[in-house]
Amino acid sequence: MKIDHPYLLFLGDAPDDLAAKTARGIADWRPDWCLGQVRLAGCETTLGLPDMTPAAAAAAGARTMVVGVANRGGVISDGWRATLVEALDAGMDLASGLHQPLTSVPGLADKAAAAGRRLIDARHPGGDGYAVATGAPRPGRRLLTVGTDCSVGKMYTSLAIEREMKARGMAVDFRATGQTGILIAGAGVPVDAVVADFISGATESLSPANDADHWDVIEGQGSLFHPSYAGVTLGLIHGAQAGVLVLCHEPTRTHMRGLPGRALPPLKACIEANLRAARVVDPDVRCIGIAVNTHALDDDAAARLLDEIEDRMGLPTVDAIRTGTAKLVDNLD
Amino acid sequence: MKIDHPYLLFLGDAPDDLAAKTARGIADWRPDWCLGQVRLAGCETTLGLPDMTPAAAAAAGARTMVVGVANRGGVISDGWRATLVEALDAGMDLASGLHQPLTSVPGLADKAAAAGRRLIDARHPGGDGYAVATGAPRPGRRLLTVGTDCSVGKMYTSLAIEREMKARGMAVDFRATGQTGILIAGAGVPVDAVVADFISGATESLSPANDADHWDVIEGQGSLFHPSYAGVTLGLIHGAQAGVLVLCHEPTRTHMRGLPGRALPPLKACIEANLRAARVVDPDVRCIGIAVNTHALDDDAAARLLDEIEDRMGLPTVDAIRTGTAKLVDNLD
Repeated sequence: MKIDHPYLLFLGDAPDDLAAKTARGIADWRPDWCLGQVRLAGCETTLGLPDMTPAAAAAAGARTMVVGVANRGGVISDGWRATLVEALDAGMDLASGLHQPLTSVPGLADKAAAAGRRLIDARHPGGDGYAVATGAPRPGRRLLTVGTDCSVGKMYTSLAIEREMKARGMAVDFRATGQTGILIAGAGVPVDAVVADFISGATESLSPANDADHWDVIEGQGSLFHPSYAGVTLGLIHGAQAGVLVLCHEPTRTHMRGLPGRALPPLKACIEANLRAARVVDPDVRCIGIAVNTHALDDDAAARLLDEIEDRMGLPTVDAIRTGTAKLVDNLD
Repeated sequence: MKIDHPYLLFLGDAPDDLAAKTARGIADWRPDWCLGQVRLAGCETTLGLPDMTPAAAAAAGARTMVVGVANRGGVISDGWRATLVEALDAGMDLASGLHQPLTSVPGLADKAAAAGRRLIDARHPGGDGYAVATGAPRPGRRLLTVGTDCSVGKMYTSLAIEREMKARGMAVDFRATGQTGILIAGAGVPVDAVVADFISGATESLSPANDADHWDVIEGQGSLFHPSYAGVTLGLIHGAQAGVLVLCHEPTRTHMRGLPGRALPPLKACIEANLRAARVVDPDVRCIGIAVNTHALDDDAAARLLDEIEDRMGLPTVDAIRTGTAKLVDNLD
């Protein structure tokens, strides 16, 4: 799955900022790729990008219009169709991270075929057969983000680490494993959507052998302690064959996501479980630090919490957005 | 996935016993369901069942012809087609555990639709949407077989435990998670073929809430230490929510299946890792014993090995076929 850029970001009729979260992630992390935004009647948010028609964006060089808006149910609204068709007519591919595939919109696949354009569904792994994982050692360096729970900031932390490494002139690629990450990276594998036997194999193909000093920063998924998705997490850990883990955590969460009454694991137990799992493919793997999502805390409370966790765990502790990830990257060697 | 019995077992042109391994498993574990066998020219094996034509089997009450033969590559031979069509014409469903789906054989789907019969591919989970797992406690008792490696006897051990429990008058169901198990049970979920996000959810639906004294004996898959498939294994462990584990092992294996150079885990470490994983959904889970596949050893060596492991591990140790599983079932409470 490879998505051409520059992008035009489609916000549709997003009623608020949250509905355009995917587009905002792309604009935040790949600003150079984003030429403009498309807003329809009813849209109540903006990314601060120029408003453009598909034709104008294509004329300015845009290669793909990205549906960066989430609807209830992840469906493609009837009111969006005309603009999707306009983008194809203007010569752009379409990419989407919604549950409903673009290919299921009546007429859209025919239109794309006639225009010689692609419909790219970042949530759907497509027909490429993945190989079964071998677990064989491969060159290159790999960092994987793991978490106490789902949706605790693994993607943002991975992207922030990539940004820090790039700023230091290191050779690095963010490797995306979920739909938003794939739209941000322009490539990737939606590991939770591949056939179970190929979770690890797809991850191996996502982060192949590389130069000895090249880093893949691999976006983690789920948690070994989340009983709905831990199989995905373990397959990803084995396929990633990471020498370095970063634990991500959200300190205000009262229970595992979607599972009221189920407590999050203690940080220490979570690090140990992830290291034990990762040692199956790299006996020397270590955890270089902790990334805490302190978004819900004020500055003082956030600083106190990061200090407290750092002291207690004996590991560099950051908020990837608030403090940056320099401390983590400092601890790589 | 539900397969009607009695069965007619199709052996095709199986050149040796090994090629008919699936049919033999069915005949061994569900003898009451097997009315006869179909052998074509070139078939060099027998199950000792009456040779029957599809028409004769259907007249005798057979509901499904099961393709119980494995070809190199898992494909359906051209030479088999006429007999498959005969079975549909005679009023039977077709079931198969091969990689190549029955639905891909030219003309077969149309023929089945016209005859009002079903094509059942045990390796393919079909279109039934599975729910995401909840991990919520559910009534009923569940035993899961886990392993040091793939293909160490988890299915046979599970079936032998079901047989022992039935002989004692216990309420029990074998729950199949792989293609051969599904053909034997007449139902099940091929967990390695479901979409990754639904491994645990599919397993929860396979072993739903039940009477407090009812046992589900759930067929395990893979190994937490096999880097190709451990994601499937962990998803299955969490979905099974088993209170009881049995560790399966093959003592003559020199390396993990398909991965030369990769050693099998020590029994103790393997039990501990499986218990740690299973505690996420049942804190009281315990391992009640070990099932060693001593097929490659003579009687004396097998007996010595079972004694040695039992002493060393402090757990009842059996060969499910050679000694039976009474010691394991004795240790349930």
